[in-house]
Amino acid sequence: MPGTAKRLSLNRVDMAPRTHHRINGQRLWDSLMELAALGATSKGGVRRLALTEADRAGRDRFRLLCEQAKLAVRVDAIGNMFARREGRDPARSPVLFGSHLDSQPSGGKFDGALGVLAGLEVIRSLNDLGITTEAPLELVNWTDEEGSRFGRSMMGSAVWSGALPLESAYALTDREGVTVRAALEGIGYRGSEKAEAFPVDSYFELHIEQGPILEQESKRVGIVTGAQGMVSYDAVVVGQDAHAGSTPPSARKDALVCAARIVDLVDRMMRARDEEGRGTVGQMLVLPNSRNVIPGEVRFSIDFRHFKQAEVDRLEAEFSSDAKSIARNCGVSLDLLRLFRIPPQPFDPDCVALVREAASRLGIETRDMVSGAIHDAVEVASRIPAAMIFIPCKGGLSHNEAESILPSQAEDGCRVLFEAVVSRAMRP
Amino acid sequence: MPGTAKRLSLNRVDMAPRTHHRINGQRLWDSLMELAALGATSKGGVRRLALTEADRAGRDRFRLLCEQAKLAVRVDAIGNMFARREGRDPARSPVLFGSHLDSQPSGGKFDGALGVLAGLEVIRSLNDLGITTEAPLELVNWTDEEGSRFGRSMMGSAVWSGALPLESAYALTDREGVTVRAALEGIGYRGSEKAEAFPVDSYFELHIEQGPILEQESKRVGIVTGAQGMVSYDAVVVGQDAHAGSTPPSARKDALVCAARIVDLVDRMMRARDEEGRGTVGQMLVLPNSRNVIPGEVRFSIDFRHFKQAEVDRLEAEFSSDAKSIARNCGVSLDLLRLFRIPPQPFDPDCVALVREAASRLGIETRDMVSGAIHDAVEVASRIPAAMIFIPCKGGLSHNEAESILPSQAEDGCRVLFEAVVSRAMRP
Repeated sequence: MPGTAKRLSLNRVDMAPRTHHRINGQRLWDSLMELAALGATSKGGVRRLALTEADRAGRDRFRLLCEQAKLAVRVDAIGNMFARREGRDPARSPVLFGSHLDSQPSGGKFDGALGVLAGLEVIRSLNDLGITTEAPLELVNWTDEEGSRFGRSMMGSAVWSGALPLESAYALTDREGVTVRAALEGIGYRGSEKAEAFPVDSYFELHIEQGPILEQESKRVGIVTGAQGMVSYDAVVVGQDAHAGSTPPSARKDALVCAARIVDLVDRMMRARDEEGRGTVGQMLVLPNSRNVIPGEVRFSIDFRHFKQAEVDRLEAEFSSDAKSIARNCGVSLDLLRLFRIPPQPFDPDCVALVREAASRLGIETRDMVSGAIHDAVEVASRIPAAMIFIPCKGGLSHNEAESILPSQAEDGCRVLFEAVVSRAMRP
Repeated sequence: MPGTAKRLSLNRVDMAPRTHHRINGQRLWDSLMELAALGATSKGGVRRLALTEADRAGRDRFRLLCEQAKLAVRVDAIGNMFARREGRDPARSPVLFGSHLDSQPSGGKFDGALGVLAGLEVIRSLNDLGITTEAPLELVNWTDEEGSRFGRSMMGSAVWSGALPLESAYALTDREGVTVRAALEGIGYRGSEKAEAFPVDSYFELHIEQGPILEQESKRVGIVTGAQGMVSYDAVVVGQDAHAGSTPPSARKDALVCAARIVDLVDRMMRARDEEGRGTVGQMLVLPNSRNVIPGEVRFSIDFRHFKQAEVDRLEAEFSSDAKSIARNCGVSLDLLRLFRIPPQPFDPDCVALVREAASRLGIETRDMVSGAIHDAVEVASRIPAAMIFIPCKGGLSHNEAESILPSQAEDGCRVLFEAVVSRAMRP
């Protein structure tokens, strides 16, 4: 965080008329609204599932807008789209930025789309201003960030980064049995470029926060210093289903009572870490799920997150031991399957510093934060220097048709992205 | 409970060879197994949903067996079947006994069927012994006790008792929209008799306990003194669904954490009543039910039971207040809908005494108990003197294909039923 004196002076700048804007907020907003019409839902949201006709429409429009902005568009074998603007120095690797155009089944207008179209606006502004950067720029639309259709989030960026083999991605299927490969070919986006990391200088991604912190604290931009680590489980509690009326307390093996106490445990463990911890039971299935039958089996998910690996480790050890003890006391069996662990992913300090300096120059109030969600930037950060910029979204609501931001908030984020990208690309 | 001295002497009788049996246990068991073949499931259970073809097959066989036992069978307008054996005194009202032949979707061989076929065995034995009782006897198969298909348990006995108007019962529909009236006509069991209580001396019903108490305490027969009262709710907790990673503890309105604490409350309130209380959350639906989304809404059922009305009242007051306080502390809203209250239903002391004396004469170890489940006997007990006899079932398991009893246990119950019914029908 900048020092107080500097912040105060910056605030003064911010109160002055904004004559130094280098991006066109209205053009950005119009592009967002036009894109949102592709796959628009009746409740004001977007349904643009990866590799569907709606996704194709989004991609076609993106390609058209890129070509209108004089960018050369390449598509790789997993459908990632790269739009290149040459720099003055052909020897330099490009500064990459962007996000994704696919959406959740009942998603919003801004998750992903903002990062891509703000990136486009950066390039349009550079065109308007006649600025050529030292390093080339590349704007990217990563394939299938949401994972809603084929079950693998960050598919395109994971293949690009080497975390997911291309053939494994191709073999994934949707509920109808359609493979990723067939779906890519179906919409004409299985490109000719190799789907693998090429030399890149750095990666920047603007995204809505998808949480309430910035709004609550009236900060206009989040400086994302990294992503949380997480550990995820499936739990199965097995007791004995029995008649709710004729089974006395001493004879009960109520799987739901045990599961309920574990839900409470997860919440208490989270709160013991203050605002830094996350612990969630999001999914639960009760069997036989009948009003007058004591539940004999409950299946549920558990998700812990923290930005410190040591704390994730402690959560794991503590949870496993305490949950088992709850099950023992309830006289039921508990089967805990650890599905996956993702280590915390810090972003590149130099890239993060560029974002912070950009916001500071623009007089925008910021807050450092850790991303609770995984993003394409987190996936590629294992290979290349990366950073993210968050802007608030209304009520922290996302993955929801009611997802909402103000034009001025999109503009804030785009301005910071512009400054950070151009600074990086202008480095001597 | 009989005094200790008496119990000891009875135990002595029980150790003596059983030379005084008046029913044929093997015949009863064979009838049970033959009936279980109608609607048999692959896992050894029974699926004989009310007013289906399987139910028709069960009814047809029951009618045939009754006619073979020289009983005249009448069917009333709701499908209740009454099989009459005349007594010596035509002026007296009949002693009624029986149960139901319909089953749960994945039910067992004995729930209901035992009471009907043990009743048939009582009559067959009287035929064998050439005994004519003073009062007439009537054996009944009540229509749709389980309520699994049309959603109304005790349908036939409720119509008969006057608790449910016939036209209301006729208008009930199954999931395919088939009405009770059409289903009755479809299987040919909309009878010509009026579906209403006729003069009856008393009602006796033998049933499996559907709970574990008799088995745990090694008692062969339960003297059922009445049925628990109950109060049943639907609860809806509304919080706010939000991203599991990006929503910090202070911003969460997790509906499932609140619901979980209410599940725990229900269990603690039950246990505070020792072995007499019942408190169950059997049904729960979590929304949106996604691994990385904090649940925004949870819908669940709550069911409290106790044999004392004052305790049901206290459970109600305490629960409503404590659950609301939990919701307040979780920052979510709680909507509690009380679906119904059923007052405790004591059985007739004279009828209960007859059952107790019967078991005592036979040297069968008993235990007084309150029925946790509602049965046809509970429904009719509001109109006529009634009592029930329980026998143990394996592990207390019922409403389950694994429901299991021993032939000797069926015989125990049938002998007590015989003694109680005949004593009552022989009263001067």
